[in-house]
Amino acid sequence: MKVGALLTSAGINIGLCVLFLSFYSILRKQPQNVKVYFGRRIAEEHKRLRGAFILERFVPSPSWIVRSLQITEEEMLATAGLDAVVFNRILVFSIRIFSLAAILCIFGILPLNYFGQDMHHVRIPSASLETFTIGNMQEKSRWLWVHCVVLYIISCVACFLLYLEYKHIARLRLLHLVQTTTNPSHFTVLVRGIPKSTHESFSTAVENFFTKYHAPSYLSHQVVYKVGKVQKIVMGAKKAYRKFKLFKGIAVDQTCRSVTYRCCLCGVSSNSFQQLSSEEQKREKPFVDDSNLNLHDEECAAAFVFFKTRYAALIVSEILQTSNPMKWVTSLAPQRDDMYWSNLWLPYKQIWIRHIATLLGSIVFMFIFLLPVTFIQGLTQLEQLQQRLPFLKGILEGKYMTQLVTGYLPSVILQIFLYTVPPTMMLFSTLEGPISHSERKKSACCKVLYFTIWNVFFVNVLSGSVISQLNALSSPKDIPMQLARAVPLQATFFTTYVLTSGWASLSSEVMQLFGLIWNFLRKYILRRKEDSDYIPSFPYHTELPKVLLFGLLGFTCSVLAPLILPFLLLYFFLAYVVYRNQFINVYCTKYDTGGLYWPIAYNTTIFSVVLTQIICLGVFGLKESPVAAGFTVPLIILTLLFNQYCRKRLLPLFRTFPAQVLIDMDRDDEQSGRMDAIHQRLQSAYCQSLDADDISLEGVETISTDEDGSGSSGESNCKESANQPDNDLTHPTLQGLPVNQLRRAVRSLGFMIRLQKRGLSA
Amino acid sequence: MKVGALLTSAGINIGLCVLFLSFYSILRKQPQNVKVYFGRRIAEEHKRLRGAFILERFVPSPSWIVRSLQITEEEMLATAGLDAVVFNRILVFSIRIFSLAAILCIFGILPLNYFGQDMHHVRIPSASLETFTIGNMQEKSRWLWVHCVVLYIISCVACFLLYLEYKHIARLRLLHLVQTTTNPSHFTVLVRGIPKSTHESFSTAVENFFTKYHAPSYLSHQVVYKVGKVQKIVMGAKKAYRKFKLFKGIAVDQTCRSVTYRCCLCGVSSNSFQQLSSEEQKREKPFVDDSNLNLHDEECAAAFVFFKTRYAALIVSEILQTSNPMKWVTSLAPQRDDMYWSNLWLPYKQIWIRHIATLLGSIVFMFIFLLPVTFIQGLTQLEQLQQRLPFLKGILEGKYMTQLVTGYLPSVILQIFLYTVPPTMMLFSTLEGPISHSERKKSACCKVLYFTIWNVFFVNVLSGSVISQLNALSSPKDIPMQLARAVPLQATFFTTYVLTSGWASLSSEVMQLFGLIWNFLRKYILRRKEDSDYIPSFPYHTELPKVLLFGLLGFTCSVLAPLILPFLLLYFFLAYVVYRNQFINVYCTKYDTGGLYWPIAYNTTIFSVVLTQIICLGVFGLKESPVAAGFTVPLIILTLLFNQYCRKRLLPLFRTFPAQVLIDMDRDDEQSGRMDAIHQRLQSAYCQSLDADDISLEGVETISTDEDGSGSSGESNCKESANQPDNDLTHPTLQGLPVNQLRRAVRSLGFMIRLQKRGLSA
Repeated sequence: MKVGALLTSAGINIGLCVLFLSFYSILRKQPQNVKVYFGRRIAEEHKRLRGAFILERFVPSPSWIVRSLQITEEEMLATAGLDAVVFNRILVFSIRIFSLAAILCIFGILPLNYFGQDMHHVRIPSASLETFTIGNMQEKSRWLWVHCVVLYIISCVACFLLYLEYKHIARLRLLHLVQTTTNPSHFTVLVRGIPKSTHESFSTAVENFFTKYHAPSYLSHQVVYKVGKVQKIVMGAKKAYRKFKLFKGIAVDQTCRSVTYRCCLCGVSSNSFQQLSSEEQKREKPFVDDSNLNLHDEECAAAFVFFKTRYAALIVSEILQTSNPMKWVTSLAPQRDDMYWSNLWLPYKQIWIRHIATLLGSIVFMFIFLLPVTFIQGLTQLEQLQQRLPFLKGILEGKYMTQLVTGYLPSVILQIFLYTVPPTMMLFSTLEGPISHSERKKSACCKVLYFTIWNVFFVNVLSGSVISQLNALSSPKDIPMQLARAVPLQATFFTTYVLTSGWASLSSEVMQLFGLIWNFLRKYILRRKEDSDYIPSFPYHTELPKVLLFGLLGFTCSVLAPLILPFLLLYFFLAYVVYRNQFINVYCTKYDTGGLYWPIAYNTTIFSVVLTQIICLGVFGLKESPVAAGFTVPLIILTLLFNQYCRKRLLPLFRTFPAQVLIDMDRDDEQSGRMDAIHQRLQSAYCQSLDADDISLEGVETISTDEDGSGSSGESNCKESANQPDNDLTHPTLQGLPVNQLRRAVRSLGFMIRLQKRGLSA
Repeated sequence: MKVGALLTSAGINIGLCVLFLSFYSILRKQPQNVKVYFGRRIAEEHKRLRGAFILERFVPSPSWIVRSLQITEEEMLATAGLDAVVFNRILVFSIRIFSLAAILCIFGILPLNYFGQDMHHVRIPSASLETFTIGNMQEKSRWLWVHCVVLYIISCVACFLLYLEYKHIARLRLLHLVQTTTNPSHFTVLVRGIPKSTHESFSTAVENFFTKYHAPSYLSHQVVYKVGKVQKIVMGAKKAYRKFKLFKGIAVDQTCRSVTYRCCLCGVSSNSFQQLSSEEQKREKPFVDDSNLNLHDEECAAAFVFFKTRYAALIVSEILQTSNPMKWVTSLAPQRDDMYWSNLWLPYKQIWIRHIATLLGSIVFMFIFLLPVTFIQGLTQLEQLQQRLPFLKGILEGKYMTQLVTGYLPSVILQIFLYTVPPTMMLFSTLEGPISHSERKKSACCKVLYFTIWNVFFVNVLSGSVISQLNALSSPKDIPMQLARAVPLQATFFTTYVLTSGWASLSSEVMQLFGLIWNFLRKYILRRKEDSDYIPSFPYHTELPKVLLFGLLGFTCSVLAPLILPFLLLYFFLAYVVYRNQFINVYCTKYDTGGLYWPIAYNTTIFSVVLTQIICLGVFGLKESPVAAGFTVPLIILTLLFNQYCRKRLLPLFRTFPAQVLIDMDRDDEQSGRMDAIHQRLQSAYCQSLDADDISLEGVETISTDEDGSGSSGESNCKESANQPDNDLTHPTLQGLPVNQLRRAVRSLGFMIRLQKRGLSA
């Protein structure tokens, strides 16, 4: 590839980016798109933004960039949560380190590489890009020490910056902990693997155990219930009602609402779960004698146990409870909105085997992903197409068409297949059995990260089929040499990858192409009413791997092929602006890992730095420069030592909370008298609640739909019902009814709905 | 090697064994050896065993074998501790699994292998041993499924037995915990990394911290002190006194004792440490104003903190204390006799880097161990010797001598070098900075285990130099094939290894050759008085790796070369008898890991089983039997799943103690009113105490010397002083003296001693 071609490509991509961003700055001002671009803000300040038609709306403006840059970290923490701040810090770290790398490499290494060999230099625009890589250096060159020194500087500064960020984020994490004073999840322990007993219910077992062993700090508990027959039937009714909801005659709505409302009131809440705080249950036992058997069927071997102080909850969550580590397994409960309810009723015994199975599954997926893709890409080759679909022959004979099909279709197919990766990994992560959304997303993020690094970086470098991948893996000693040979050669590809995939993905992110199209379809084609309850949360599992992959490319190419750095730096600047804007305006933070994405980013960066050093070692070896190679070895050891130090010094803070901080918080609350209020709130904090639809019927704004659509059926915000602990969710009348009668009732409900529908359409 | 040769070798070795054991049965009855063979029993029942001369003493008898077999597990647990029981269970497991393997393989596989090829069979004694290995099977043989089935049976039974043992030992561990009710280490937390402060001492810092954050359960504390100038000088005096002690005139003894006793009473205890319980210290502060600076110099950033209940201590030891994980690092304290005092004053910050350094050191040692050995072996070759030491020429020309030198010397040198391995690894483990003897021994045990498996099994199989070792490591894919080719060939060597090294090591173990010679030397040549305080503790770090190595050899050879099994089985039977005898009679259990050797043994066994399966996979591949190879793969997966299950289900019990058990124990003690007595004892449980010599002077029987002689200077039993908390160890008079005066005093003491010595000899 020539420099001219690269610059053309860069120019085109920059033009496209500017175009897209201008489009965005116009589209965001259109009132019909406000839902797409300001989802989060709308949820906050409902429908205040819609203005009249003004000309200004159609003039592109950079004001959003300015606004995005003006946000402080405190604002971001307050509006988008700690994870967003961590993401932001990753971008800041990347900008800092690659600014330095760009200055050093462009002014220090690029000229050395360019004049590395005695050769006739053509005009720069038509020079081959390879002349700018280390491949152009002569063997045994005296100037390789410059590369070595630059590698030292970049590694050391990267470690130093990493350490600063690590400390900063650890501090933020503790601050975040201290500031969320009334968070009920700090007082709550999720107990799983409660042993089954014939003569007592799970609820009694939990109460007995904790009053026996943790009496001073135990407050109350709440057993998790899983979907039973009655619930399933009522859910059928819900579905029928939901269809009906589209027709909005007031009279009809009235009737309907009342019907559903009654369903809601009865013991069978609309979704898979049902809340029974221990007190209520005790109170009801005498009433619901005949349905006792049903109740027992539905109890899960899991419970929320509430404690009087945060420190007590932490202790119980960390100590091994009994002599069987598979029973009475305790962990701090996730936040209410973060709960992944449907995984709660998985027997704890299964979890370890699910972990192994999904791990194996995703490894296999990672390795054989390219097989079907290559096969289908092969099918779209011209001859194949003509053979299979003879009627296309005429069309495909045009030269332009041929170029399009052969040049474009394979990469489109690859892109489409790549789009399936995050959902697949999310599915794997769901099957793993995590108990919270954030845990699931974090696990998916790791899987997508490994997948991306393997399939973009290594497969390109090792250029190959599954067999050659495995061959590479099976001779670890040759890997440095192989990488040293391949990386400088592949640097051109990586540069164009940054241009196309990186910049393009940012443009599409800021444009929200899917959201825009879907919004348009729904509004003007389907003519549906806006449903304000769907606001996506930030897709860390697709965006974080992208950013980290570009970081990896930056590190590995920096010393070897520095021409990639300016483009990468531009990407990071743009990403900084775009993602900050998205955090503030588009995405809604429903749940938070509390900064747990940072260790992933940190590990990946250390991996990238060490990989870079290993590749450089290989390159110095190939160039027969023993001095440079010799000096690289201690650098690798020092980097690994630094890593070990960070793991000892800072990582534990991301695994648990320090006792000192929790005890201080507990004391503060006790002294200020807030503790009683917190204990009061705990009782209803983890209710297994009403469906999103029901709540919106009752006029409560909620934000809850599973944006990944994979398997979680009943989690939703239940602030409303949380504030009404008297709301009798387990109404004894319906609870006592036999299943057959209920079924009949539901059927007649469906019949009614159908009748009214017909009446409306007539 | 022919069968006849093997049988001859076996016969000779069995003969030698019988001879040694007969010797042992005679020698053990000699009163002068009672110290060697009944060290533990002597320590228990002092000097009761010595009888007069009777003829019976010189007749070999098998009674000790009977007695050794009669000991029950409870007796063993009571006398030799949990670790001994674990060791015993490992032997029982080995006997069980290899009995089964021997039956299956000798009757099932051996005939198949022998008749595997259509060949002329010579008489069995002169048949080559290779005809009994799987190498004799024809390729694509239909009978390979028998090997596969036997592999399945052995693997499944091994897993089943392992699981039973694991459960049994976990139960024993809990039982052991419950039975040691008054163990002060359960109430004690060792705090390290106490932050330095200019305006308060460590002791004040500890008190402030724990009264602030753990007030309800905090009892008291005790700062660790490290050796200072004054102490060193007094230790010099101690040494002078010790020399003098050999001359036992009563009058002299009197004087001397009083002098030393005064030394003992003063603040400067004889060894590197000094006990100051927090109360005493407070009491003394006003007296020792002028020596305050000295005191501060000697304080360590470590302290013992005592809690009111076991559960409280467990909590504090497991929870992260502050937001800096390198400060206020807590762990349950080891038992008093187990403390490795001199490592306590290492700054906690260093520990992680020491870990890495020693890890690297031992890996390097493991890989390059054979280099110098081979070099020196080369030097002893005949030509080299004759060249270097010309005067030997005459001697070496005799044919018999030549054979001896060339055939025997190299293996002697190898053996001598091998003897240096456990001390070297022990040294590495010491440098690592463990705080207890048991931890150090366990760590050394792991290192020796890896070393043994690598240098006996893999180096023999991969036959080679460092380069070929590294080559083998660098192509992991080829390892199964390489092993499959090499293991059947090496089986003969392993069989002889079991005969010579295994049986011989047992004989030398039971004979206590070193002990015997040393005892003889001391008694009859040096004419020293018996010092009853030296009784070795069991060398787990040399014996466990041996037993596990033989287990590995058994598993890997079982299906491939079953001829090894009868010899191995004999080894295990003998080991069972011998080690039980040694536990009961010879070794003294000073410290106990609480069964932590079991996870090491378990991991090694699982490794052995999986390695066997992988090798069999390779062999089936070589023999072109896709069915057998195909069926082996799921077996590997199942074994790994079983391993994972055990790690989840049972391993946590070896890492911590369950809360339930501890809380129940605490309640029992509180209800029975024992708690106050325990709290009383705690105050003096961790005194940094008097030297062994001093205590024996004061008439207390103690058992304490560092049998490895590597670096621990001052740990000893201090029951006496523990029972006298009033014993004023920090006497203000001497403490206040300036260093110069003290030095003068010591010099005059030395002078006195020399004078008295002269008077005696005159």
